[in-house]
Amino acid sequence: MIHDLVSKSTVWRTALLTICAIAAVMTVSLPVDKLNAASKVSHFKLKNGLEVVVIPDHRAPVVTHMVWYRVGAADEPPGVSGIAHFLEHLMFKGTDKIAPGEFSKIIARNGGEDNAFTGHDATAYFQRVAKDRLPLVMEMEADRMVNLKLLEKDVATERKVILEERRSRVENDPSNILGEQMHAALYQSHPYGIPILGWEHEMRALDRKKALDFYERYYAPNNAILIVAGDVTGDEVKKLAEQTYGKIKPSNDRVRDARPIEPKHRAPIRVNLEDPRAGRATVQRMYLAPSYSVAEPGEAEALDLMVKVLASGSTSRLYKNLVVDRKIAASAGGWFSGTGLDSGRLGVYAVASDGADIADVEKAVDEVIADFIENGATQKELDRARNSYIASHVYGGDSQSRLARRYGWGLVNGRTIADIEAWPERLKKVTVEDLQHVAKKYFDKSQSVTGVLRPVDVKNAGSKKAKDGKKKS
Amino acid sequence: MIHDLVSKSTVWRTALLTICAIAAVMTVSLPVDKLNAASKVSHFKLKNGLEVVVIPDHRAPVVTHMVWYRVGAADEPPGVSGIAHFLEHLMFKGTDKIAPGEFSKIIARNGGEDNAFTGHDATAYFQRVAKDRLPLVMEMEADRMVNLKLLEKDVATERKVILEERRSRVENDPSNILGEQMHAALYQSHPYGIPILGWEHEMRALDRKKALDFYERYYAPNNAILIVAGDVTGDEVKKLAEQTYGKIKPSNDRVRDARPIEPKHRAPIRVNLEDPRAGRATVQRMYLAPSYSVAEPGEAEALDLMVKVLASGSTSRLYKNLVVDRKIAASAGGWFSGTGLDSGRLGVYAVASDGADIADVEKAVDEVIADFIENGATQKELDRARNSYIASHVYGGDSQSRLARRYGWGLVNGRTIADIEAWPERLKKVTVEDLQHVAKKYFDKSQSVTGVLRPVDVKNAGSKKAKDGKKKS
Repeated sequence: MIHDLVSKSTVWRTALLTICAIAAVMTVSLPVDKLNAASKVSHFKLKNGLEVVVIPDHRAPVVTHMVWYRVGAADEPPGVSGIAHFLEHLMFKGTDKIAPGEFSKIIARNGGEDNAFTGHDATAYFQRVAKDRLPLVMEMEADRMVNLKLLEKDVATERKVILEERRSRVENDPSNILGEQMHAALYQSHPYGIPILGWEHEMRALDRKKALDFYERYYAPNNAILIVAGDVTGDEVKKLAEQTYGKIKPSNDRVRDARPIEPKHRAPIRVNLEDPRAGRATVQRMYLAPSYSVAEPGEAEALDLMVKVLASGSTSRLYKNLVVDRKIAASAGGWFSGTGLDSGRLGVYAVASDGADIADVEKAVDEVIADFIENGATQKELDRARNSYIASHVYGGDSQSRLARRYGWGLVNGRTIADIEAWPERLKKVTVEDLQHVAKKYFDKSQSVTGVLRPVDVKNAGSKKAKDGKKKS
Repeated sequence: MIHDLVSKSTVWRTALLTICAIAAVMTVSLPVDKLNAASKVSHFKLKNGLEVVVIPDHRAPVVTHMVWYRVGAADEPPGVSGIAHFLEHLMFKGTDKIAPGEFSKIIARNGGEDNAFTGHDATAYFQRVAKDRLPLVMEMEADRMVNLKLLEKDVATERKVILEERRSRVENDPSNILGEQMHAALYQSHPYGIPILGWEHEMRALDRKKALDFYERYYAPNNAILIVAGDVTGDEVKKLAEQTYGKIKPSNDRVRDARPIEPKHRAPIRVNLEDPRAGRATVQRMYLAPSYSVAEPGEAEALDLMVKVLASGSTSRLYKNLVVDRKIAASAGGWFSGTGLDSGRLGVYAVASDGADIADVEKAVDEVIADFIENGATQKELDRARNSYIASHVYGGDSQSRLARRYGWGLVNGRTIADIEAWPERLKKVTVEDLQHVAKKYFDKSQSVTGVLRPVDVKNAGSKKAKDGKKKS
């Protein structure tokens, strides 16, 4: 269930686009560790409002260059779902200087690689190149920030690409179909319930005008963050940024509108999908929870640690109970998605083992959660979870692109550099009582959607049972 | 469950605002019968775009005067839920000519009564007065179409009124809480899922500016329909309308934007509410279905008749099976809501009788539906249902205000006068095969939300059962 967000195009996109709740586990709140480059991070703004972060990393003569726009799928106009992601694709179609489809080829010819992704809150473009190619890349990225040229025929071709992307990622995978339905049910009002790829019928109506309207509304230096990590200094990047992005005029009114605030739900929701392509029966549950951007102080950190103890990995309570001891599940886990400008999500899941009834599996998940709420974690469990996070945080700091993404996610979601860097220190303050507190507060079924995926022959067994039940009544 | 839409303020508002799905059963598609006044209906437009319908009814010297705006709660900007309904309240706050709160008092002093309502697709204002007061009423209604004056203090007071309205109608009634949650789950994308009253936290943020923005965007003669029924002729009304509404300039761009089209759902959804205030356990199910405005020819008519045979009244299949024969339900029924500019809804419900398990009740509902899909209705059942509709349509034609509302709903939802008047003829063409066809097509669980409401002591029994279940596994 967990996808690593390496920069391989497909994996990266899948993770972010179709199962972003789960993918976010990997990126959320892993600010840079002071042992790495963090203490030397520069952060400044150009006169036109472009925010710049420079993360020096001199281990190799390469740089990671990213531009993040403060706009994502949750900012799309009603009925135009998918336009943020479609525009991300179309951004590779060229400008006056770059012929259609040439952008990535030029990067590749210069020995680099590039990609992009769209989330609900942000859209980002990035390249990894040798240090001496940084000026070229900055020139090219600044160019397409305002000079995008779209031909009708390229738009039509790319619309087929995104429809195929949807077909292969969602339509071909019942667990992603279910995930999409669960997200839609989890948000009664907030646009996080609308898929990033878009609803298919709305994707079919996406066109050049809608893409350009969205582009002109949101793509501007004063709505963007430039992040450069690698074998450079703040001064070098500042000079290059002024020569490239600095030439672009700022635009008024590029700040996105506030999104509707999700109302408190009144009752638990269930979504049941039966699909012949499903493997084992699976139960998932998502709960509304705060994100780092909106949580009470310390709660998001406690949620990260709580879910680690309770449900993450083979030493977690959930896994040990369902998979190791009771053997009713083939796999079980949980996650907390704490990125998100407006809210986060907490989730648990379990896959039934052969012969196990998925209803019993769900009951077992509930029992493990109830026990945790009642008895909490031990200090040892908390310490192990915390050490594990801090370790992966340190290792994560070794990855230039991951480091760049930490700052990108943090800043785009309204956090400060100091916030991002103080994460390990804040983790250290979390107590076992905090874990119990957030478990009790956020494992609230009335704020949840439970999804059950069953293969078709399990369905038949279900009908049989229903008939037996009928006799009784 | 069925509320008659008489013009008594509270009943009228309750029905339309909080259980509009059910209420709509009463108003949907009951076009005027030719035996009544219909053949003399006039329909014309003023130069400024105001559409006018005159329904002569000379039985008594009274008139019903209505103005319908082609805007409702489904046209609200994201995050501003409740503004259409709030504005409806504020429309009684006065203009330069009418002091705050005086509008209804003037009508009452002239021996009349007035009210207003807000739906997802329309907002309407109406008065019933003696014939000689019609010029006064038209003058007043035309005045507030463009000259509304709002004082901050009146806005603040009225906001308390709508919050109290929400508290009393929704918060005090678990079945309305559940209904609201079910609607929210039934629409993943379309704004019909947002309550007409608004989400409470958004209602608290409604203010004078938001109300005036909405008013200025949508209230204009070219976005309105005037309906006058009563002891008048088309020529009389035309003259009066030109002297009053005719003086108002049309405005550009008052046509509402298209709303997002609801995507096809992939899996059934369930919402479970437990509430100590609930009486007997109840199960409800809503299915997405077309409305008269968007249905394939004949399908909406067939849906109306099908639900009548299957689930409406004590002679229906559902009632006979669950209440009379098996005695597991204290009540059971169903409805089709075919008004709606963009879509309709089909629904069934049952209330458990003492000692009955709500799961068994739901199973029984499903069996009745499955049997209907398999075996269809008899010609006798169809004829009875059709005759009953035609009779209530004829009787409905005796009510001046109901007659006016038929035309209002029809026109505001994009139908023509001819469409509205041909309804009984179209009903006559529906066959038993059509009933079976629409039942099969629209009783599709994957397009449904099932809501179960349980009182708390049934909940405890449920927990006990869960524990027993556990032992087994």
